[in-house]
Amino acid sequence: MGYDLKEFYDGLVQHGLIVPVGVPGAFGRGALFEEVLERFNALVSELSRTDGAESYTFPPVISRAVLERVKYLESFPHLCGAVYSFFGDEERAKTLAARAGAGEPWAEFLGMTDVVMNPAACYPVYPSFTGTLPEGGRLVSMLNWVYRHEPSPEPTRMQSFRVREFVRAGSAAQVLEWRDSWLQRGLTLLGSLGLAAKSEVAADPFFGRGGKLLAVNQKEQQLKFEIVVPVISAADPTAVCSFNYHQEHFSSAFDIRTADGDRARTACLGFGLERVVMALFKAHGFDPAAWPPEVRRRLWP
Amino acid sequence: MGYDLKEFYDGLVQHGLIVPVGVPGAFGRGALFEEVLERFNALVSELSRTDGAESYTFPPVISRAVLERVKYLESFPHLCGAVYSFFGDEERAKTLAARAGAGEPWAEFLGMTDVVMNPAACYPVYPSFTGTLPEGGRLVSMLNWVYRHEPSPEPTRMQSFRVREFVRAGSAAQVLEWRDSWLQRGLTLLGSLGLAAKSEVAADPFFGRGGKLLAVNQKEQQLKFEIVVPVISAADPTAVCSFNYHQEHFSSAFDIRTADGDRARTACLGFGLERVVMALFKAHGFDPAAWPPEVRRRLWP
Repeated sequence: MGYDLKEFYDGLVQHGLIVPVGVPGAFGRGALFEEVLERFNALVSELSRTDGAESYTFPPVISRAVLERVKYLESFPHLCGAVYSFFGDEERAKTLAARAGAGEPWAEFLGMTDVVMNPAACYPVYPSFTGTLPEGGRLVSMLNWVYRHEPSPEPTRMQSFRVREFVRAGSAAQVLEWRDSWLQRGLTLLGSLGLAAKSEVAADPFFGRGGKLLAVNQKEQQLKFEIVVPVISAADPTAVCSFNYHQEHFSSAFDIRTADGDRARTACLGFGLERVVMALFKAHGFDPAAWPPEVRRRLWP
Repeated sequence: MGYDLKEFYDGLVQHGLIVPVGVPGAFGRGALFEEVLERFNALVSELSRTDGAESYTFPPVISRAVLERVKYLESFPHLCGAVYSFFGDEERAKTLAARAGAGEPWAEFLGMTDVVMNPAACYPVYPSFTGTLPEGGRLVSMLNWVYRHEPSPEPTRMQSFRVREFVRAGSAAQVLEWRDSWLQRGLTLLGSLGLAAKSEVAADPFFGRGGKLLAVNQKEQQLKFEIVVPVISAADPTAVCSFNYHQEHFSSAFDIRTADGDRARTACLGFGLERVVMALFKAHGFDPAAWPPEVRRRLWP
């Protein structure tokens, strides 16, 4: 396979791995796609088995107040997804239904609810850390659906996808040591699956001209790393795992303190599960039965 | 335990089974809650192992066009969730962020996207049936997150939850025979887990006064059944599994035909997975280690 994004997308569809749904980045996943995803996720669980992480699952929507509190809209307004619903009476409902039925705009009929799409797998957990952490800090594992408003025909750029996430809260030393050890773990894991994985310093996709400065600052301070693998381009490989050191961003917003009373630090890492699966299909072909024996042994031990 | 919804909610929280997040019906799920959910889901898979169902996973958002096409807003405008995002320039983004940061309304700054929350696990699959079905029809299994805008302190009434769903498309006889066999399967399965399950004719929560007529009609035609189990009330048990016969509703909207050229019929059934898990905790207590041996043997064979 060359690096043609349409050819790769069409291949995924033709092999029943994904199912188009009429909007970009929200396709269905077939049974084999899901099996590979679950197998990879199980390898991540196995790697972290003795780390003592607490495990949670959060819904794809979170409290709107969390987005407001962490100032998400200052940095990523273009990626947000807020859930709107109908609060009107029967007359207004009739007009709404008539409009929608006639293919006319109906945006004005809905109002904002108290929930928004979860934009990052780790967001719902920080409010639950409010207060004083135990001596060794906290470590939490999650598998959540996240949403980003970036419709694209590029298969790895999804509006809705799953992230296997870990969050560490504690002192700066605890958090950074943990992040560095996982950077190595991630590279080793992905390499063992025959993926040409490498790590690099990265920046978040901040909005607008002002965002460019934020990105430069983030890179200078080395606050974000990504593990990248070629999927739709050799020159511009795709991030399949992302590591963020938040310093005091979330601990300030939610008043999280270490056992000795200092402001805590937090970091997170997340494997983009669909992207890892796509990287595997890209590297080894659309038929897992024909994947290299060492890769098959890792995923189907 | 008596039937006190606050006591039940607080018990779920105190035992780490759910984690409050500041908005009703969007709580996190703890590891043990998830384990019971996965074990129950595995029993459903085992029951249907030889049925030959195709299996898909769809994201929590679907194309807005599907909602419009099936006229969802005529019946359930109050339950819908549409995803809005920001389409403005940097000036407008600054005002938006300032508003949100100051706790002031910011609804007017967002516009409607092409995706909406998936309101029923089966919705994304119908468009993929367009055309002529194979001789025996089709059978699809899914596990999807669904959204309903009905914030409530009642733990079984969630805004966001998972449904293990099956969809059958074919002739009326094929579809109804399938539905009836699953009604019996569902009762037997839930009964084997020590739940006081019974089936009843039911109606969807249609909006407004006009909706009351639709509900009466739906009941008279016996288009909807539910399996109910007492969870937060003995007198008003909770639906944990729902069976809907759609007649030609979806096959008309998406032009689905049987092999001999007739308009197809469709039916679906879905287990509300969180509700089944809550029913188990309600019936047998918050500690699965102390559940009746025959229930434990079913879930942890």
